[in-house]
Amino acid sequence: MSPFAGSARTTGAWQHIRVTRDDGVATVTLARPEKLNALTFEAYADLRDLLAELSRERSVRALVLGGEGRGFCSGGDVEEIIGATLELDTGQLLDFNRMTGQVVRALRECPFPVIAAVHGVAAGAGAVLALAADFRVADPSARFAFLFTRVGLSGGDMGAAYLLPRVIGLGHATRLLMLGEPVRAPEAERLGLISELTEEGRADEAAAALARRLAEGPALAHAQTKALLTAELDMPLAAAVELDAATQALLMNSADYAEFHAAFTERRPPEWQGK
Amino acid sequence: MSPFAGSARTTGAWQHIRVTRDDGVATVTLARPEKLNALTFEAYADLRDLLAELSRERSVRALVLGGEGRGFCSGGDVEEIIGATLELDTGQLLDFNRMTGQVVRALRECPFPVIAAVHGVAAGAGAVLALAADFRVADPSARFAFLFTRVGLSGGDMGAAYLLPRVIGLGHATRLLMLGEPVRAPEAERLGLISELTEEGRADEAAAALARRLAEGPALAHAQTKALLTAELDMPLAAAVELDAATQALLMNSADYAEFHAAFTERRPPEWQGK
Amino acid sequence: MSPFAGSARTTGAWQHIRVTRDDGVATVTLARPEKLNALTFEAYADLRDLLAELSRERSVRALVLGGEGRGFCSGGDVEEIIGATLELDTGQLLDFNRMTGQVVRALRECPFPVIAAVHGVAAGAGAVLALAADFRVADPSARFAFLFTRVGLSGGDMGAAYLLPRVIGLGHATRLLMLGEPVRAPEAERLGLISELTEEGRADEAAAALARRLAEGPALAHAQTKALLTAELDMPLAAAVELDAATQALLMNSADYAEFHAAFTERRPPEWQGK
Repeated sequence: MSPFAGSARTTGAWQHIRVTRDDGVATVTLARPEKLNALTFEAYADLRDLLAELSRERSVRALVLGGEGRGFCSGGDVEEIIGATLELDTGQLLDFNRMTGQVVRALRECPFPVIAAVHGVAAGAGAVLALAADFRVADPSARFAFLFTRVGLSGGDMGAAYLLPRVIGLGHATRLLMLGEPVRAPEAERLGLISELTEEGRADEAAAALARRLAEGPALAHAQTKALLTAELDMPLAAAVELDAATQALLMNSADYAEFHAAFTERRPPEWQGK
Repeated sequence: MSPFAGSARTTGAWQHIRVTRDDGVATVTLARPEKLNALTFEAYADLRDLLAELSRERSVRALVLGGEGRGFCSGGDVEEIIGATLELDTGQLLDFNRMTGQVVRALRECPFPVIAAVHGVAAGAGAVLALAADFRVADPSARFAFLFTRVGLSGGDMGAAYLLPRVIGLGHATRLLMLGEPVRAPEAERLGLISELTEEGRADEAAAALARRLAEGPALAHAQTKALLTAELDMPLAAAVELDAATQALLMNSADYAEFHAAFTERRPPEWQGK
Repeated sequence: MSPFAGSARTTGAWQHIRVTRDDGVATVTLARPEKLNALTFEAYADLRDLLAELSRERSVRALVLGGEGRGFCSGGDVEEIIGATLELDTGQLLDFNRMTGQVVRALRECPFPVIAAVHGVAAGAGAVLALAADFRVADPSARFAFLFTRVGLSGGDMGAAYLLPRVIGLGHATRLLMLGEPVRAPEAERLGLISELTEEGRADEAAAALARRLAEGPALAHAQTKALLTAELDMPLAAAVELDAATQALLMNSADYAEFHAAFTERRPPEWQGK
């Protein structure tokens, strides 16, 4: 836990997403299976607030984001989101779209790796949530569709026009965001959109195993790797090299670095503390 | 058509390229087949001026760029361009190279998707024109060659050293731009340089079909997707997410977004207006 | 040789790396085969100083970086680097990490292409040295491992978190830097991490041939291509297009550009001077 706690309380009960914690691993499940885990205003807000809390608490070392039932997430609910936004005024529309973007920023900027466990459909905002994760562990049923233009909106939603070209290149990203066509697991793997392809029905299990491994390993090193990958997309080479130098100098004083050396010298496996 | 017209007249006749328009789709054909559509000073100038006019008129929703005869475009004409530049003074050399760069900027910044229909050779400036398009629809005869170093020039011509690494990654881009070797269709597809691979001789037809589909669909959404993909290559994540939020808030007031919802509710296909 | 020489002498003997020169091609060999060419403080310093000298002398047109014995480079020596850093103070740690970063910046910014000839292991700092090269010529025994997190450090070392996403995309880069798992030649080629895959045992030979070809070709054009690829990763499109225009206007006054035109006109191969 962080020593830097203020007045804000942590939320005991998340009503619009399911959250469990197990010794450094948080698992967030989108749990509206009857609606293919379609997102609501409240689910977005819960994701935003949860990630902010977990980021300041620092008790979590890896997070799994998955979906219950037949698929990962079908995106914003047509009635509860699209229908409702038709009634919102200008300021409210901006508030809503900023909130969804805040979830993506939080996924990229939180101090622990995020693993999306994807089976079945990951569509619209669901595809962007998976895209914003550090790892996409998917089974052969996974199907990504950035279908924003299909509802008359820009393919650049929640940072997708920033992230997707940096993951799969500008040519493929243009095709996917402009046309909104589904990308099935084999193509997604070929494009570099899938980090680990599992056997059918094993995405959750493999994501949990990866999270466990990350949490029990040198977690501070993992967290810094993520932070630098995120930051250095937006930095020139010279600045990136300087950031790397300062970061490594810092980590060379860490417990885990000393432990690696001791373990190597003593010919035993290191006992990582994540510090 | 745009309501914002000034004193400038539109050009009735383009003499150095062939331009046709058909209900929202413009088709530009490089039509010097006896020279493999080698570019001249005048052809560059026509492309620059045409794209500027189409961008301010706003009557076009998709543009196809193709080549007549045996190939797409063999690049700058060795005699009419390379020979002629040997006689130019410093200011004229800069003017020429800025003009070619303006064509690429116009292709990336015009408010409609551009589809390059590629068969046969796309070499030198021809390869960069295809690279600057949003889609490259190519048949198996397509052959891309960034052969600038082969004539003693920099591989970074008309933005190629900016665009190519963002489409196929820095490693492949270095190889292609430094060595100027041809990339045939199968490798181009593997690298992500081709958006859609067609049957032999079908690139023009498939490009036209894609343009028609884009023009008849939610064209404002397509245009904004393109604008955001172009802009967000040059923005940090936080700014990109803010741009996305403002853009979606805007489009949530558009006719097409309301139409999607109405059509969904009434269980019929949407009738897109592109507004 | 550059006409701009000052007081600094060039170093006659490099003690911690092996350096040979042959008519425009420099070959740098990591030559501690009994330690899989593990890097020491002194080897890093030699690489930093050599690249600075070669950059200002301008007698080199291509550089090959290879490793003697069973592999390319196993990275920082566990005892001589990791063990030693445990005794360094804060300023010394920063100095060390800045030095390693300077080697990477020098590889990206030196005015000649760099070819890494990779066989066997390229691990840790060794993997980043290869990554910072313009070409990675590798044989089937090549194995890349960014194993920084395995020793408790950040995967973003020496610019790796900047470079790797730009070479293979953010998804694959996250996986490789966060987990530190080895990538064998077939996967490395699929990801775009290998520029040229050779037959077993032929990486050095193929790298030398490529260097020879680059040095005997239009070397100024190659150098500018490299400079623009490096610079334009950090520039917006409009600036990149302007840099390209100024560069091409400059090179259109070069001897090699005139020579290309003369040779083409006279139907003979060009005789490149590299000027």
